[in-house]
Amino acid sequence: MPETNLQILLKRRPVGAPVPEDFAVVETPVPEPGDGQVLVRARFLSLDPYMRGRMADAKSYAKPVALGAVMEGQTAGEVVASRHPDFAPGDVVLGGYGWQRFSVVGPERLFKVPAADPPLSSSLGVLGMPGLTAWVGLEDIGQPKAGETVVVSAASGAVGQVVGQIAKIRGCKVVGIAGGSKKCDFVVKELGFDACLDHHGDLDAQLDAAVPEGIDVYWENVGGKVQAAVFPRFRDFGRMVMCGMIAQYNEAPGADAAGAPAGPNLGPVVRKRLRIQGFIVSDTGWPRYGTFRAQMEGWIREGRLHWREDVVDGLRNAPTAFIGLLKGENFGKLVVRVD
Amino acid sequence: MPETNLQILLKRRPVGAPVPEDFAVVETPVPEPGDGQVLVRARFLSLDPYMRGRMADAKSYAKPVALGAVMEGQTAGEVVASRHPDFAPGDVVLGGYGWQRFSVVGPERLFKVPAADPPLSSSLGVLGMPGLTAWVGLEDIGQPKAGETVVVSAASGAVGQVVGQIAKIRGCKVVGIAGGSKKCDFVVKELGFDACLDHHGDLDAQLDAAVPEGIDVYWENVGGKVQAAVFPRFRDFGRMVMCGMIAQYNEAPGADAAGAPAGPNLGPVVRKRLRIQGFIVSDTGWPRYGTFRAQMEGWIREGRLHWREDVVDGLRNAPTAFIGLLKGENFGKLVVRVD
Repeated sequence: MPETNLQILLKRRPVGAPVPEDFAVVETPVPEPGDGQVLVRARFLSLDPYMRGRMADAKSYAKPVALGAVMEGQTAGEVVASRHPDFAPGDVVLGGYGWQRFSVVGPERLFKVPAADPPLSSSLGVLGMPGLTAWVGLEDIGQPKAGETVVVSAASGAVGQVVGQIAKIRGCKVVGIAGGSKKCDFVVKELGFDACLDHHGDLDAQLDAAVPEGIDVYWENVGGKVQAAVFPRFRDFGRMVMCGMIAQYNEAPGADAAGAPAGPNLGPVVRKRLRIQGFIVSDTGWPRYGTFRAQMEGWIREGRLHWREDVVDGLRNAPTAFIGLLKGENFGKLVVRVD
Repeated sequence: MPETNLQILLKRRPVGAPVPEDFAVVETPVPEPGDGQVLVRARFLSLDPYMRGRMADAKSYAKPVALGAVMEGQTAGEVVASRHPDFAPGDVVLGGYGWQRFSVVGPERLFKVPAADPPLSSSLGVLGMPGLTAWVGLEDIGQPKAGETVVVSAASGAVGQVVGQIAKIRGCKVVGIAGGSKKCDFVVKELGFDACLDHHGDLDAQLDAAVPEGIDVYWENVGGKVQAAVFPRFRDFGRMVMCGMIAQYNEAPGADAAGAPAGPNLGPVVRKRLRIQGFIVSDTGWPRYGTFRAQMEGWIREGRLHWREDVVDGLRNAPTAFIGLLKGENFGKLVVRVD
């Protein structure tokens, strides 16, 4: 029996939180690469919060996934056929496309990576888009200096873990915010943050105790009540790196429409000379992937960078895992083992 | 009869909008300069919104004026006595201090300026702190590029007039927002903005019509409902230059305290990669005063820079004029002719 391509499609646009019925699982023929293209077999699929945005038919920085099309995502796997001179069957690569077993891609964002050491799944996490997001956002916006205080929300998540560890390497005091004592223990004991606050508890009181000096850099992954608690605590010249606001991704009709929940009064931005800046890693990140990866691999070899992955088995389980991701149910970078 | 120093003191801290009874007018002896100091006789006093902040006993970027102390402000006038080698009696200078006829100052922020051509009062406006504020904020944060759309609130005010005209010189489409048709007519006909919107009218509808393409740079002077109408209209990579939020300066207990009016939902900051940044001109502006002034005087000679001043006669009238400034009653840069 010839192999087929297992694909997960967007069946309908979610209203609020996605449900399993928003997705469809289909089997289709394995595609063939055209001239200059490469056929990749996915070993791991990355699941990331930004995908919620692609499910909505709203104007955004990237086009939505069409109804009936394969869900957008990045995979790591191996080349099984190539019509591009730089890639050959057997090459292990980062850069397959979509929630599917096989994908045909061009060479633009396809990178050869080690098959192991570090394990391939790390090329979707600490050494992949989330790690690159952390690295680019700190390089370009956060710019933490030794001795400064950095607060990271979603600290045990794919991006947050890397943000905090790079800030520690830079000599900062780093305080994470995460949901629950298990995640907080991990953030402090395994990642080496100076402290971690549980947003299920009284965040104001915990912030009073943990950062009485105020905050120089806040890495924003979540929005909502965490943002409201952190915002008044900036020191002069503080930077708020706007990476995402996952707590608000399921909002209808969209965060900038009428009826969206309010944000902070911006008065302190003037008085404290704050900078609030958003970014999307795909704007400028991938051309810097080599530089990023070399630096990160150096820190890994030196034992200064650790990570945790939450691996779900089976592509068919991707929708349920993704729905859980939006609720904070994952613990560490969420990836799907495709086979 | 020997001359005396007429001074206006802060008698009590205002609750909400300042009232005349918050100030005291006193006559005191003319002070004498110490070693390295200069005695300046004020011809003009600048009145600016930031002074409201100095009247409050809140933590801010600058210390509040002490109760019973002379109100903070900048004057232009002439040197009447000098114990500093760089200054001599008769020199015309920008940089006297306070709501008073005579002040003793050091040389740090004291600049010799022309006695006329342009008129001395302009050294407190287009060629003074407000003009420098506009110039620094555009240089460092707004960075408008030819063809971009720039929206300026408080467009007929001391800072707004300069912001819009520099943006026009840079090749931008410039739309002002001001209160009332008289101010809007001035902004379009005398300053050369492409359009001016009256915030007493339906601002949403006016913005729909004036900037259907969206906004690249928003110069924030006012906050409140103007900010709320403008914020959702940013284009990708938009910049919000946070210069002030005069509509909220009389708020108690302060814009970052509990109960402060909410600001915009920050979701679009990520998706549109916006930058929201505050600044205070005194952080970095005065060492660049010479560069700024040379460029501005060039534009004035070329007829590309115009301005309007609202001159109030008599130092005793400064409190009433300042109270009006916070209500938007001035029309152009507000200065007091001291004599």
